[in-house]
Amino acid sequence: MTSRMLEEARDAPARVAALLATDGDRYEALVARLCAAPPPFALTIARGSSDHAATYAATLLALEAGIVTASLPPSTITRYHAKLRLEGALALAISQSGAGPDLVMTLEAAAAAGALTVAIVNDVAAPLAQAAAFVLDQRAGPERSVAATKSFIASLVAAARLIALWRREPNLLAALDRLPERLAAASTMDWSEALDVLAPAASLYVVGRGLGLGIAAESALKLKETSALHAEALSAAELRHGPRAVIEPGFPVLIYALGDPASADAAALAEALVAAGQTCLIASARAGAGIRLPLPPPLHPLLDPIVAIQAFYPLAVALAEARGHDPDRPRGLHKVTTTL
Amino acid sequence: MTSRMLEEARDAPARVAALLATDGDRYEALVARLCAAPPPFALTIARGSSDHAATYAATLLALEAGIVTASLPPSTITRYHAKLRLEGALALAISQSGAGPDLVMTLEAAAAAGALTVAIVNDVAAPLAQAAAFVLDQRAGPERSVAATKSFIASLVAAARLIALWRREPNLLAALDRLPERLAAASTMDWSEALDVLAPAASLYVVGRGLGLGIAAESALKLKETSALHAEALSAAELRHGPRAVIEPGFPVLIYALGDPASADAAALAEALVAAGQTCLIASARAGAGIRLPLPPPLHPLLDPIVAIQAFYPLAVALAEARGHDPDRPRGLHKVTTTL
Repeated sequence: MTSRMLEEARDAPARVAALLATDGDRYEALVARLCAAPPPFALTIARGSSDHAATYAATLLALEAGIVTASLPPSTITRYHAKLRLEGALALAISQSGAGPDLVMTLEAAAAAGALTVAIVNDVAAPLAQAAAFVLDQRAGPERSVAATKSFIASLVAAARLIALWRREPNLLAALDRLPERLAAASTMDWSEALDVLAPAASLYVVGRGLGLGIAAESALKLKETSALHAEALSAAELRHGPRAVIEPGFPVLIYALGDPASADAAALAEALVAAGQTCLIASARAGAGIRLPLPPPLHPLLDPIVAIQAFYPLAVALAEARGHDPDRPRGLHKVTTTL
Repeated sequence: MTSRMLEEARDAPARVAALLATDGDRYEALVARLCAAPPPFALTIARGSSDHAATYAATLLALEAGIVTASLPPSTITRYHAKLRLEGALALAISQSGAGPDLVMTLEAAAAAGALTVAIVNDVAAPLAQAAAFVLDQRAGPERSVAATKSFIASLVAAARLIALWRREPNLLAALDRLPERLAAASTMDWSEALDVLAPAASLYVVGRGLGLGIAAESALKLKETSALHAEALSAAELRHGPRAVIEPGFPVLIYALGDPASADAAALAEALVAAGQTCLIASARAGAGIRLPLPPPLHPLLDPIVAIQAFYPLAVALAEARGHDPDRPRGLHKVTTTL
């Protein structure tokens, strides 16, 4: 029987097509507001997978709009009640359920401090959407698997679409049109070679850099949730500052080597690790060092991370099953986490 | 023979006393500039341990000055050459050596984009200091151990001193005066119970929240570097969003339960994990659930993280030795890491 998680991951291409075909007026209204008063900086408010979508959104904002983005720990508001200076800043909250009270309280505080509030949610009636001046609907459809897949993809796509419309990037807009087709191709990639490496593993690093860092973090979280595997995400640069000491035979490294300039460092790291005799799994559209996990041909540097994470999800499901876990029932977790 | 790392860690109280006794004019010059034109937001530029010091500095800036801080990935500049909008922002670089070309290039770009540049360095003649408008000297003395200890402590103290002088916080200033004595007390804490738990471990989480998150990250990095132990730092809140699925008997959790409001969540998490039969090491000044790693009595909520990390360092050294590693010679690492 196919797991719910795999079914939902396979649903992503169709859901992305739906997202891209609707709500044009909502995006344009927000774009008009951003153009009228460009924010001096941005902050993101998110947890879990959505926080990794926020990492991706932060990279887009820096590269395409020159805007620096802080990942705001909700405890700043929920525990310390800090009086933040946020006049004119863009406060972007991301959440599938939109129900986490910590996120709602933090976004409300941002609004009260003068921020322009935006929520990317899958339930536009949720409290988080109510707290936002602008709401972008993930249009991912019901997601019942505890481990998010299509809603994560939808968050990235919503962020990319907003940037494309705001910055009037014709190449990015054209590439977005082709994204559903490329996501469908990603779903068929054969990553089964990774199963032999990861099924007996206890720990691994998942490495990305720049645009690839958010999906490395998302991959690591999925492996924790569904395979009870201690996967930690790191940037290729940070790995050289200490964490490398942990790598030895039996401690594999999964590396996202995409086509953008920072990912070149991830590819170079893969070569160095393979040369040192370590086990590397390399998600890449091109042949190179290590055990290759194939990706579809590049579409656009800003969108290739979305294609790559779609190629990863079937592996996460297969690995959970190979390790004797039910991917739909992670140990000790719930779909909506209520912390303050 | 005492390791160089332990010698340097034990030198921290005296070095902090020296830091606090000098350079008052440098701090006041920077404070005058910050008061004359308060930055709308801040960004930090750092790697490794120094990046964890930056996490602590970011929390201070939010809680005491209402300033939101982004951790800027150097790849934003070194690989993507993004044109960032930084007019008036505070750009804070932290580095022991001040020699990393990625940090220098990124701080120079921040200066060119109109940011107020500050470097916290242990070598005021280093390129990073040359690139900064204001330099705060760590005054940690020579640090030859690859794994930073006293220079990390000094970075936190420099940040706390700057905040105390800027915000004119008499309680914090008075507490800073007593910090060297409390650090000396921290050096004598007996954490040997942790050795039995961690010597046979392969993986663990190190948990903090809010003010405690930066030192959780620093602790995890030290355990990686010196004990080749896969230690990952997490916030107590994020742990509930997926990572908890990895915790089982034999996978211990080291929790910093300090006295501030966010740390209360870390203490609550410890109780829940202990109740579920998991192995928890709790660094705390008070008795509670789990195996207690004692801390000196609280001094000031903003400074207690500094005292706690000082109490941790002797354990890191003893654990490395118990696991058969030389803490002064981490596998495959160098004191200065040159990446772009």
